[in-house]
Amino acid sequence: MRVALLGCGVVGTEVVRLLIEQADDLAARVGTPLELAGIAVRRPDRVRSGVPKELLTTDAQALVTRDDVDIVIEVIGGIEPARTLMLEAMKSGKSVITANKALLAEDGATLFAAAREYGADLYYEASVAGAIPLLRPLRDSLVGDHVHRVLGIVNGTTNYILDQMDTHGAGFNDALEEAQSLGYAEADPTADVEGFDAAAKAAILAQLAFHTPVTAADVHREGITEVSAADVAGAKGMDCVVKLLAICERIPSADGRNGRGVSVRVYPAMIPRSHPLASVREAYNAVFVEAESAGSLMFYGAGAGGAPTASAILGDLVAVARNVAGGTPGPVEVTYAKLPVLPMGETVTRYYIQVDVTDEAGVLATVAEEFARHGVSIQAVRQVGLGEEAQLVVVTHRAPDAALTATMEGLRGLEIVRAVTSVMRVEGDE
Amino acid sequence: MRVALLGCGVVGTEVVRLLIEQADDLAARVGTPLELAGIAVRRPDRVRSGVPKELLTTDAQALVTRDDVDIVIEVIGGIEPARTLMLEAMKSGKSVITANKALLAEDGATLFAAAREYGADLYYEASVAGAIPLLRPLRDSLVGDHVHRVLGIVNGTTNYILDQMDTHGAGFNDALEEAQSLGYAEADPTADVEGFDAAAKAAILAQLAFHTPVTAADVHREGITEVSAADVAGAKGMDCVVKLLAICERIPSADGRNGRGVSVRVYPAMIPRSHPLASVREAYNAVFVEAESAGSLMFYGAGAGGAPTASAILGDLVAVARNVAGGTPGPVEVTYAKLPVLPMGETVTRYYIQVDVTDEAGVLATVAEEFARHGVSIQAVRQVGLGEEAQLVVVTHRAPDAALTATMEGLRGLEIVRAVTSVMRVEGDE
Repeated sequence: MRVALLGCGVVGTEVVRLLIEQADDLAARVGTPLELAGIAVRRPDRVRSGVPKELLTTDAQALVTRDDVDIVIEVIGGIEPARTLMLEAMKSGKSVITANKALLAEDGATLFAAAREYGADLYYEASVAGAIPLLRPLRDSLVGDHVHRVLGIVNGTTNYILDQMDTHGAGFNDALEEAQSLGYAEADPTADVEGFDAAAKAAILAQLAFHTPVTAADVHREGITEVSAADVAGAKGMDCVVKLLAICERIPSADGRNGRGVSVRVYPAMIPRSHPLASVREAYNAVFVEAESAGSLMFYGAGAGGAPTASAILGDLVAVARNVAGGTPGPVEVTYAKLPVLPMGETVTRYYIQVDVTDEAGVLATVAEEFARHGVSIQAVRQVGLGEEAQLVVVTHRAPDAALTATMEGLRGLEIVRAVTSVMRVEGDE
Repeated sequence: MRVALLGCGVVGTEVVRLLIEQADDLAARVGTPLELAGIAVRRPDRVRSGVPKELLTTDAQALVTRDDVDIVIEVIGGIEPARTLMLEAMKSGKSVITANKALLAEDGATLFAAAREYGADLYYEASVAGAIPLLRPLRDSLVGDHVHRVLGIVNGTTNYILDQMDTHGAGFNDALEEAQSLGYAEADPTADVEGFDAAAKAAILAQLAFHTPVTAADVHREGITEVSAADVAGAKGMDCVVKLLAICERIPSADGRNGRGVSVRVYPAMIPRSHPLASVREAYNAVFVEAESAGSLMFYGAGAGGAPTASAILGDLVAVARNVAGGTPGPVEVTYAKLPVLPMGETVTRYYIQVDVTDEAGVLATVAEEFARHGVSIQAVRQVGLGEEAQLVVVTHRAPDAALTATMEGLRGLEIVRAVTSVMRVEGDE
């Protein structure tokens, strides 16, 4: 069985190392040896420790259509040329393994259609949450169950930053700088801190969990750049912690169990410290899955890095190699449910709100009336400070996001409200 | 595709419910409808809500060899008649799904040999940790990786009891009684509290993780009946918590990476509160896996119960049905590594020891000398109380269990030692 590798950066180098070091183990598990047929790179002269020079080629196009290649592993990343190469590989009868979350979230439908058309395997465990076996359990183990919700920390960089803010009371900018100096965040941290990376993963998870087409553009996305030390301190006061969450929910309809749509969103939110996700520290990832029969499950581990990502790719490689050897491709993604993705305004959530108010009689009544006017029910309200420092902390019951947004606007227009100092959604059980 | 069910208790009833309720979803995922062909029970007259009476039969033997049955699900439990029925089913060309941990841990080899011989599938996700997708990730996702260690809380009853002891300072007997009154523990709790259930699961996990044959009899087993309120309080003082752990370890040799053997053991041990397993509360299960490339992973969820177990069975059922439809059985268990299971004495671990001592000069020196005499290095020692109440708390570095046991015996023989009041192993990173 011969394998072509597209790209040989951090992850690719680890894949090569594992293929060589674990050759005997892999052969035993597949039933036949796996051999590297070629490695497509842009700069063949770059030093890559442990990578056989004679396998390098700059002609990726030729490599993916070579007759002696059975399986193609794509770790180039980005949209092009990755998409064209993967499509050509499948067209030539090769099965494909990829870690490319951006491409899957933007145009997975084209890839899955090609896999179906040409009878090829398309596996992508490494695209979400690194080495954590997550897609396979969702796709295979829970296939006989009914997933209600997926709630996850799927971006290590932002979790590291928020964890530093929670642990040391650091502000966002200081925590970001530290993450950059330690290599947890890139020089341009936009993809991570603005939630783009998490949104791509949320789209992939939602599609798999609900058998319905979801792209990155469908995902409501808010990053963590606006999270302040005050927000984090406010969360502490509620015995909560702020995490950047990717949330995929099936929204039930009044009648049918399949629901009237799905909600897919990424934003910073408070979760109770007793929630299993609250204890996910540093750059770790974890995904919480709620299913009808299985109940609550959690998957935890390193969400990125060369070796963990390579481990996930090797797991896929063994599965695909067995399918190829047996002549039967694995199951192709099915999106038979075709549920609509609901706008954020229809999503039901809870808010935590901190408001600076003037210190006069009737303030609480005026504020409470504003919530009532938008049909938002208050779970708890607390007055903090006196005089110039008077502050109200309000936690709502669950309400449509549009009603909550309208309430915020209403509050900002009240004379007695000097400033809305913190607004944050609350997730985890009420 | 026709399915026979053996046994219709709590789990079986849930399997029937899911097969009927989710029929459309299952058909979409398998590619063909799944139909219940028959349900073998001992007492057909018992009331079983939602179970079609006309499918019940008392002739399990006939059911498993019927020509119109493709897949057999076994949820009878115990060794016989489950083993004979499963063997006959495979001999008749049927694939088998089972939740039977006792049988797999006692005589899995016979079942796997039959699966290989007759080209049948034998899937058993539900046998360990209920609905938590654990065996499939170990078998499939981590197949290209190298597992060093599996550390798990795999028995909900004992975790509930230890959690109550930790949270409320309850003694073992009170906590057991409460667990029994709430239905978490059975009237005869032996299988749970003496660690038999956890040991069977440890054998299954070790076999899968290390590709080496392990039976329940190979597992070193200690239950939690001797865990005292003082042990739990001692753990708190160390910022640890006591958990009943199932531990499967590959023991490295000086030269080869495959190691000189495996250690498989079940006992109560202290783990640091910062360890992800420490926050597993009530009757939940969680399994921590350490692999070379993937790093640390954790799988968390409900470890038992009708619906979670049925969910795991349905996941297996879809996989097996796809294999049957495609005419290609899935991978059969491979135990090619054949590593020896090492005796407990050779296992390297750490001890926490509490000793009542007489209050005189040189006590610490005498105790320290006893540790040194057995080659056990002390990590920390603390003197608590004075006079009649004088106590030493010692935490060792890692040492062979035999040396630690010998040290304990030596300590008990010292004149200055009035009693060894607590001995507990310490797991999690040193």
